[in-house]
Parts: sequence; structure tokens; C-alpha cells
Amino acid sequence: MNAAEAYRALEERFRRRARVQDALSILHWDNATLMPAGAADGRTDQIAELTKIAREILLDPATEDLLGEAEADAGAIDGWQARNLELMRREHRLATAIPSDLVEAMQRAGAASEMNWRTARRENDFASQRPHLEKVFGLVREAASVRGAALGLDPYDAQLELFEPGLRDTDIAPVFADLGSWLPEKVAAILERQASAETPSAPEGPFDRAIQKQLGEGLMRALGFDFEQGRLDESMHPFTGGVQDDVRLTTRYTEHGFVEAMMGILHETGHALYEQGLPKAWRGQPVGNSGGMALHESQSLIVEMQLCRGPAFVGHVAPMLAEAFGGQPALDVANISRLVTRVRRGLIRVDADEATYPLHIILRYRLEKALLAGDLAVADLPGAWNDGMADLVGVRPPDDRDGCLQDIHWMDGAVGYFPTYTLGALGAAQLMAAVRRDVPDLDARTEAGDFAAFTGWLREKVHARALSATTGEVIADATGAPLSADAFRTHLDARYLN
Amino acid sequence: MNAAEAYRALEERFRRRARVQDALSILHWDNATLMPAGAADGRTDQIAELTKIAREILLDPATEDLLGEAEADAGAIDGWQARNLELMRREHRLATAIPSDLVEAMQRAGAASEMNWRTARRENDFASQRPHLEKVFGLVREAASVRGAALGLDPYDAQLELFEPGLRDTDIAPVFADLGSWLPEKVAAILERQASAETPSAPEGPFDRAIQKQLGEGLMRALGFDFEQGRLDESMHPFTGGVQDDVRLTTRYTEHGFVEAMMGILHETGHALYEQGLPKAWRGQPVGNSGGMALHESQSLIVEMQLCRGPAFVGHVAPMLAEAFGGQPALDVANISRLVTRVRRGLIRVDADEATYPLHIILRYRLEKALLAGDLAVADLPGAWNDGMADLVGVRPPDDRDGCLQDIHWMDGAVGYFPTYTLGALGAAQLMAAVRRDVPDLDARTEAGDFAAFTGWLREKVHARALSATTGEVIADATGAPLSADAFRTHLDARYLN
Repeated sequence: MNAAEAYRALEERFRRRARVQDALSILHWDNATLMPAGAADGRTDQIAELTKIAREILLDPATEDLLGEAEADAGAIDGWQARNLELMRREHRLATAIPSDLVEAMQRAGAASEMNWRTARRENDFASQRPHLEKVFGLVREAASVRGAALGLDPYDAQLELFEPGLRDTDIAPVFADLGSWLPEKVAAILERQASAETPSAPEGPFDRAIQKQLGEGLMRALGFDFEQGRLDESMHPFTGGVQDDVRLTTRYTEHGFVEAMMGILHETGHALYEQGLPKAWRGQPVGNSGGMALHESQSLIVEMQLCRGPAFVGHVAPMLAEAFGGQPALDVANISRLVTRVRRGLIRVDADEATYPLHIILRYRLEKALLAGDLAVADLPGAWNDGMADLVGVRPPDDRDGCLQDIHWMDGAVGYFPTYTLGALGAAQLMAAVRRDVPDLDARTEAGDFAAFTGWLREKVHARALSATTGEVIADATGAPLSADAFRTHLDARYLN
Repeated sequence: MNAAEAYRALEERFRRRARVQDALSILHWDNATLMPAGAADGRTDQIAELTKIAREILLDPATEDLLGEAEADAGAIDGWQARNLELMRREHRLATAIPSDLVEAMQRAGAASEMNWRTARRENDFASQRPHLEKVFGLVREAASVRGAALGLDPYDAQLELFEPGLRDTDIAPVFADLGSWLPEKVAAILERQASAETPSAPEGPFDRAIQKQLGEGLMRALGFDFEQGRLDESMHPFTGGVQDDVRLTTRYTEHGFVEAMMGILHETGHALYEQGLPKAWRGQPVGNSGGMALHESQSLIVEMQLCRGPAFVGHVAPMLAEAFGGQPALDVANISRLVTRVRRGLIRVDADEATYPLHIILRYRLEKALLAGDLAVADLPGAWNDGMADLVGVRPPDDRDGCLQDIHWMDGAVGYFPTYTLGALGAAQLMAAVRRDVPDLDARTEAGDFAAFTGWLREKVHARALSATTGEVIADATGAPLSADAFRTHLDARYLN
């Protein structure tokens, strides 16, 4: 078999695996939205079986042989195919780097840790979680070291690679150092400004769920979401799931307010537009997948934070809200703008506004690096967390429940994930500045509810590129500069301090 | 490996296959209920891939070896395990009997035929369907002959075996001959009786869908359906899908009336109770599956036709209907009873009442046997159909749309399926007579909305047996007599002519 034939055989193999993974995505979505509680054990078995089958397709000895044959003649393929082959090798390397007994040990320890955490968090019981965290960090350290050796990476980079292909700590460190140097002061300035401005008043409900849903669907459609290839549903925790031609996003409604559910829909719509905008011809191939978590988050945040919390979008949506829910002073443009741009020093990352959110992330980034390197003992985590919160965010958690026990990520072994949230926020700001450069009348269009140029720009500059380039390359090509915190700073000044 | 070890390895292998099949069931359910239209092609690929994987698990050479080893020592296992091994061999034989190029040819021809039928039926175009039907019957004939040779069965029996393990035409022929000898006259007598009675009046809507659903769920719960392991949803064609611990049934609501949706729910609840009542310890094993289609249909019909269209149940539900939708004369017990027991000579099988339905089936049974044997040419089907309808049901179709083009079964190659509908109806009547024997105060309980004894009887006598016995054995054990049309005749007399 020559290199071109081997490459085609690999495409077919990865396509088969992707079909199994697509089936898994639908099962996971069903789990989170509709599945009756009593089906959980059976579903776990089904998911485990399909996961094993997908893994077997990748780890079949034939895959390794085909990779070798395809790589033997670098001239046989080029462009996206060559990149695809690189990514196939990367997936194979990631899957084979860690011995299977270590993989199993991590899964077992992660599952036990997560299970304990569900109680420990509620009961503010760090002592019971500590041995689990020690075990998990011990195993992650071992895996990061083995994986790093296989990929030629330092351990923390070997963790970052899991969530964002090609991302290195040398990309993050200077950006986060810059951000950390000026953001706390900026937050103080914003808070001072908001303290002297009018306090936003809460709109009075009840807000009918069906009307909220209808409104959300209308906004999704206007933004370019294709309901022929996707759905909007409800789940406890909003997420975007499904598959490329069947993108399923969820939100959670309450009748007391509509802002959270609406902003949740808009956030997930950003993720969903990315998935729907991937090139159909490359479906099922590694190069046809969406980029890393940072780029994905940039797509949700450019819609939610950059576009939809901005004055032009609020100007567009406020009359729709008054029409849907009946007029009240709290639904005027100025009040809604205040509501969706309110900044507060808080304890909880997932409730944080865009200005303070990166400070929550910088804390986690520093701590997880220290925990992974062994420079910080798990036993010392609560103290380090609380000191860091006081220092960076300006509030000291009264307990671990709302402190170092608040997030699931570490409990599960997901070390290296947190930075992608803030890289996404910085990317969103930088991409939005480029949209404004290329679409000078963006605000007028937005206020008129015309999002074609906005979404079209993202489709061309981001979505259509899929994984043919790294997140760094996509952002640099689209904006003309490497990813930095500059545009985010300019954005905060313009929105909060002008 | 000794026989007991080989058997245990087979159990594990079939369990893995069942997990893949369970995933497929959820994907099929999702297809029919929620999937956006634009995802159809991708879903077809996912389903094809998982179907292939499930088939590969069965057809792996190791399965054949293990079957041989397990069968080598008949004393190593007994009871349900021995029956399970038999059924494993049966599945393996069915899957290997037909050469794969013939399987593929049938799938292709069936898909093309079904696709053409969707238009041909609408346009009353038998001419365009004829070559497809000829091709499909030709291939089914070939497959039935090959499968029959492998199983030691005549071709029609080899078709029946696909839908009802162990069912032979020698079981059907005398029963259908008996039924055909007296049912046309009985229908005439019923129609004469109903013509001289009061005509039922249609309740006046609109009937709110949400209230219909709530009512349906309440009835399901009362009948013993476990919502911790199942759901009620909507689809174009009502069906029961999902998996044993997540049984998902559907109905279709209209605001003009509630009877059809409610009876649809009750029918599917019969299927669903069967699935929920299968023994959990045997989940994923062939012996743990539900019995053939005839026994499954007996479970839907004993609930819908025997129990819920009877006067005691109508007495129970009529006040609930008046409460839910507001009182009106058409919602009184007598009128609803007349509505749900109205008999009419009609053209369409799926719209037929319980008295005329078997006549539709006897026609199809006769015709499909003749078509399969080559005694009837496809070209002569419309004429034979119309003559048979005039003779058996007493109406002559004005066109093929409402004649021989009305059903999907043959278009798809499902020859041998039709008899199971009527065997199910006869089984339901015979089982209901046995319930009445064992639960003398059944009517009083039913009128009071207490279905525990009814469902409990079915759980013990039918559901819990799964595939440990044939349909014939289950019915004979539960009722004390082999399956016949006697109880059905008694039932018609009691309900319509007493």
C-alpha cells in the first residue's frame, strides 16, 4: 500500500470512529436532558461499551501500520490532508502514551473523587476530599510526566495539550502576567464608577417559560443558528452537545427572571454556531473538528460578552423584551444595559462577570501549576486559595464550600483546563476588535437585528478553518496580531470606563 | 476452556452486543421523536456503523468456537442458561444463514422500494411500485429458501421465524381457517345490532394537548408504568422504543379529539409494561428478551382492547374525562362505550376495529403466502386484493392507495409479519379470559382504578418468562389451553352481541 492509499484508509478508519463518537454525543446529550433517573446504570454501560469500541478502532494495530506507511512519503499528500495526518498521529500518541493500567487508575480515582466531592462540597468538608485530591493529583502528575516524555513536553504543557492542541505555558505565562498586573486595579476603577451610577433594578416576573424559549429561539435564528440541524432544550447545567449536523444546546429557565436563561442561550449559541460552521467536507476527520477549548470559548464569549451585553444588542433586544413580557421601567435599554454589565467581587467563578472572571482563573492557573509541580501540598490548598482570592479578587471565602471546593475540574483530574476560559475571553475581545475593523457599521447592524456580517465574519475567519491551524494561528491570521490581553483591556475601558 | 466457561464467555459477548443494540434503540427513538430533519444522513451513517459493529460481535469467529464448546457438554448448564444457549445458536444461525451479498441486495432493494412507495402510495401508482415489489419478493423468496434450508424449515416458516421464534404455519393455518369460517358472519351480526342502537356522538373539542398528556400519564402510572424507567413523548407514528430500563412510548395528539391519542397511549402502555416487566437479571441475554411479535401484540391488545375498551374501564375513565375537559353529554359512560366499540367495514387496516381487523390480516396472510410461493404474480396483486377485501371485509377498494399499497410491510420485505397482529389479538382474548378466571372481581377493581391484580397477573404469567418459553407455551401455561380463536369469539359475543 502506498502512502496515499494508507492515508485514505486512515480517513476511513477515523470516519468510522467519529460515527461511534457521534452516537456517544447523542447519548450524552440524552443523559443530561431527558433520560429517566432509573436508566443511569444501563446508560453508563452503553457509554462505556461504545467508548471502548471507539478506542479499539484507534488502537487497532492496523492504525499504527497505516500511520507509518502514510508518513513514509511526505509528498503524497498536502494541505489539510497533511495536517489531518499530523492530528491523527497526535490522537494516536495521546491514546497510547499512557499505559492502560494508569488510565484505569485515573478513571477510578477521578470517579471516586467526584462522587465524594458531591457530598464534600455541600458539607464544606475539605478533610474528606483531601485524600481524593492527593490521589488524583498524584496520578495526574505521573500521567503528565509519561505523556510529556512521549510528546517531548513539560508536564504542565502535556496537560494543556489535552484541551488545546499546541498551547504551551510559554504562551500563557506572559499574557496572564500582564493581565494580573493591571486587572485588579481596573476592577477597582470599574467598581468605583458603578458605585456612583444608578443601581440596576430587577425586572419583575413571572416570566413565562414558553415565551422565554420562543424569544431565545428567535435570537438564535437571527444569529444564524440553523434549526434544521440543531435544537434548543433544557438541562440542569446549560451546555452545547450533539453532533456537527445536529447541534443541541440547552439552557435552564426560571420564572423569576429571564436574563440568565437568555444570556445562557446566547453563550451556547456562540459554541453552536462554531460547530455548525465547521466544513462539512471534513466531517469525521481530526482536521475537521473544532479547535481547542480556548478557541471554542472565544466563540461563545464573542457572542455573549462582546456582542450581546453591548449597548447595540441591548438596544435591539429591549423592545422585544417589552413586547414579550409587557412594558415595565426595568425593561428599558439603560436598565438592561446596567443589569448585563454589572461588576461585583464574588466568591464563585461561574457567577463572575467578565471583568473579575480572569482573576478567578489566574488564581487557579497559579495553584494548579504549583500542585502539579509538587510545590504546593493539597493540605495547604485552602489557605493558598483564600489568600489568593483576597489578593486577586478582593474577597476572602468564609469556607471551602465557596472556596477551593467550588469547581469540579480538579476533582476529576482536569488539570490545565482553566486557562482556556480566560484565553477564550481575551481571544473574543481581540476577534471583536477585528470584526469592528472589517465591519465598520457593526453597531448599526446589531441594533437593527442584522447579524449576517458578524456571523459571516466568524464563519470565514474562524469556523471554516476547523483544526487546520492552531488557536494561536487562527487568532493571529484573523486579527493581525498574536493573542494578548490588549484588546480585552481596551474593551473594558470602552464598556466600563469611558 | 470447558463448556461452562465457554457459556460464560458467550454471555459476556452477547451482553456487549446488547449494549450496542441498546444505544441503537435510543438513536432510533431520537430519530422518530426529536431529531432535526437535516441530521438524517449523518444519523443513518451512525446507525449503520453501530449495526455493523453489533453484527461483527456476533459473527466474530470466536462466537462460533464458543458455541461449539458450550454445546459440547449438555450437562454443564441447565434451565434458562440452556435455553439461552439455544437462542444464541438461533441468532447466530439466522445471521449466518444468508450470504452477505444477498443481505445487502435485500437491504438495497428494500430501501429503494420503500422510498418509491412513499410517492407511489400518495399518487395511487401501483405501476411504478410493481417492479420494486417483484424485486423484493424475488429476493425474499431466495432468502427464505436459503434460511429455510439452514434451519430445516419451509420458506414461509423461515419467514415467520424472523418475527416469532418457533411459530410455524401449521400453528396458524387451522386457527385462521376457523376464524375465517365464522368471523364475517359475526361482523355482519354486530353491524346489524349497532345499526339499530344509538349512534355515538363525537365529543366536542378543542381538547388541550397538555391535559391529554397529563391524563395519559396518570393512566400509565395507574396501570403500573414506571416513570423512573421510561417516558411518554410524541411522534408521527406511535410506537414503543427505548430499552428495558428506559422504555419510551409515543403518541400523537390532536385537539379535535382525545380518543385516538388516549387509546394509542394505552396500547403502547401494554407493550411498555411487557418490556418493563422482563427479568432484570437476564438483561442483555437472548433469553431475557421479550417474546415474538405475537406475544408482544397480545400485551398491547390485552390492555387496549380487552381492558380499556371494556365497560368497567370506561366507567373508571369517563368521570376523569369530564373532570379534565368539562362535562358534556358525549362524555358520559354510555356514549364513550359506544365510541370505543364502534364496528365498521373499512378499507384501512390500521384504522380497523377489533372485530374486522382479523379479516384484513387473513387477506394479507393468504396473499403473502401465495406471493412467496409464486402462486400469485405481483401484477395480479391489486385484483386479488380487491376481490379479497370484498369477500372478507365486505368493501371493495376504489383504488390501490387504499388497497394493496396501504401497508409498508411488503414494500420493505417484511413477509410473515402480518399474522402476528391477529395471533396477538387472539392471545389477548384468551389471556384475558384467564385473568378473569384468576381475578374474579376484575371489573370492580377496574372500575375503581385498581389495576394491580391485572398487571401483576401479566407480570407473573407473561412478562417474567421473557423468552424462556415460546409464545405458544406461555399462552398454554397461563390459560390451560393452546392458542385458538375460541376466547376471541366468546369475547366478541359478550362485548357486542349479548
